Amino acid sequence: MSTLPLQNIRILDLTGLLPGPLCTMMLAEMGAEVIKVERPETGDLIRHMSPLLYAYLNGKKQVVQADLKSENGIRYIKETVRNSAVFVEGFRPGVVKKLGIDFDNLVLENPSLIYCSISGYGQTGPNAGVPGHDINYQSITGLFSICGDPDGGPEFPSGIQTADIAGSMYALTSILAALHQPKNAPARFLDISIANAMSMWMMPRYLEYLTRNKPPKAELMGRGAYGTFLTRDGRYLCLGVVEHHFWINLCKKLKLDDLLQDESLVGWTAINARRQEIMPRLQQLFLKQDLDYWLRELKDADVPVSAVRDIGDWTHDPQFKHNNFIPHHKDGTIDQSAFRRFPVDLAI
Amino acid sequence: MSTLPLQNIRILDLTGLLPGPLCTMMLAEMGAEVIKVERPETGDLIRHMSPLLYAYLNGKKQVVQADLKSENGIRYIKETVRNSAVFVEGFRPGVVKKLGIDFDNLVLENPSLIYCSISGYGQTGPNAGVPGHDINYQSITGLFSICGDPDGGPEFPSGIQTADIAGSMYALTSILAALHQPKNAPARFLDISIANAMSMWMMPRYLEYLTRNKPPKAELMGRGAYGTFLTRDGRYLCLGVVEHHFWINLCKKLKLDDLLQDESLVGWTAINARRQEIMPRLQQLFLKQDLDYWLRELKDADVPVSAVRDIGDWTHDPQFKHNNFIPHHKDGTIDQSAFRRFPVDLAI
Repeated sequence: MSTLPLQNIRILDLTGLLPGPLCTMMLAEMGAEVIKVERPETGDLIRHMSPLLYAYLNGKKQVVQADLKSENGIRYIKETVRNSAVFVEGFRPGVVKKLGIDFDNLVLENPSLIYCSISGYGQTGPNAGVPGHDINYQSITGLFSICGDPDGGPEFPSGIQTADIAGSMYALTSILAALHQPKNAPARFLDISIANAMSMWMMPRYLEYLTRNKPPKAELMGRGAYGTFLTRDGRYLCLGVVEHHFWINLCKKLKLDDLLQDESLVGWTAINARRQEIMPRLQQLFLKQDLDYWLRELKDADVPVSAVRDIGDWTHDPQFKHNNFIPHHKDGTIDQSAFRRFPVDLAI
Repeated sequence: MSTLPLQNIRILDLTGLLPGPLCTMMLAEMGAEVIKVERPETGDLIRHMSPLLYAYLNGKKQVVQADLKSENGIRYIKETVRNSAVFVEGFRPGVVKKLGIDFDNLVLENPSLIYCSISGYGQTGPNAGVPGHDINYQSITGLFSICGDPDGGPEFPSGIQTADIAGSMYALTSILAALHQPKNAPARFLDISIANAMSMWMMPRYLEYLTRNKPPKAELMGRGAYGTFLTRDGRYLCLGVVEHHFWINLCKKLKLDDLLQDESLVGWTAINARRQEIMPRLQQLFLKQDLDYWLRELKDADVPVSAVRDIGDWTHDPQFKHNNFIPHHKDGTIDQSAFRRFPVDLAI
């Protein structure tokens, strides 16, 4: 019989929508028992917005209905918290205090409780009371300003719920780390701010921005042989050339002898600086053959290359088929109940 | 004296660039002792590409130079692994076997070792040997196809190293989970594929895509009152209206009485479906005042609103100043040595 890492850990989960439930979904996947509390009747809003996502996030949790505005509801929370290692909530700051289930109150029930609050901007600070969603937390970290067209403006967020997911991943890692502390450790309060979590993921680019003396977007995000190119059959190819030996492999394969011999074109920065000359030349070449031709040829030449997949076809990519993360029924339709929730097998 | 969760845990780290070092940076932040092995002379490539990022990622690690092509180098790895809980490597699949430090070899030194390999596509499958970088792993999961302009093509990646960061976060969570297993558990192999990690973060949007019967990009990503708007002073405002009560607050504040009274405009889907009418009307209104006016007014009206910050100014946002994640010296310059590496305080 296989054993998962968090067996015998109980989590009481009062969150809804994406960030909290995604975190506790992964805790459940690691073997924890997750009790998800939903309000009576309407339940979690995501039930109505995206039923498949609701099932994915919450399918392995025990769902309990409780009215937190009733004495019975609050009694249920307090009783359950006594035998739970972790409590997770995602209300707007101040709400749990009104309900009588804030940190100070629940610590009376369980003096070693790990109390995790997930909110947009954290429990304190000028924005603590401001409502928000993923797009707002992306916007204040400056993520938009480095997304999309290097020559374009700061209009569009990244396509996935990057900030919500950041909040979720840091809630998860904080809880996993806190669970390493002794069982009788004093109660801990994990104040997860989704905006703060998102800001951590800005750091690599931000430090690049500082290192390069604060260049404008076109220069910061513009790359020489790192980008997408249209091919003859209307599909896109993606090149990720960073190291110099890959640049040599690319130039040799494409017979770009003048670039190959150009001694000023050594190193990533030099190649990026000449992107306005290099990119159109690469684009012109790639239009001469279909995507599959280039994938085959460039993989053979040991160049970092990939197909640009669409949200409709990525699950058919041979690599993802190999992993079987998105299993298909025999008739070719997707087996939604078996979608993978964590990418690594943790059982022993 | 404060105690961190991973004190007394040693990690031997053979990774470079971003994904591996970001993972072990957070393990160090949780109290682990991280020994980072770099090749002699050149060292980690990121030293040269982005010195500030190198210092951020590796500043709290013990850095050791070892030539893995020498007997001495390999002996050092094998000896150190005996007293390490975790070994992390980021070479292309096959390399560790050639060096003699693959899973089977290192388990002979430490039968309870947690061996974590971080690679682009995992250790097996059609792409296992193909080189790649962040942009490639983003591209095969279909992320580009939902980024940027809802009416645009699949040309641009998300601005941060989303896939590399995903690989890093799942390596971290897998290691943290594996460390919960008994100290004398059999050795475990954690096969972290950056592409697989990225695919996990596609799931919420992918399930929305399936729930909504596979709409085209404009429909999937086009939103009614969820997006960015130019204001009078040339700066951008971000609205994140999802729940109906926020829609009511917005319409009341902006005196959009006809929309407020329109009974067909109830619920997110209905509002998104009429985006081509709603977005231009909102844009027209927002051009009449400056960003700060709208932030103040809409926060007062309890609408999910935020500023669209730039990579150059986000650290000056009052909320981030409050957190002091990016500390400044007294003269106003940034204190790079004190940048926050994990958003939550885990000491007890």
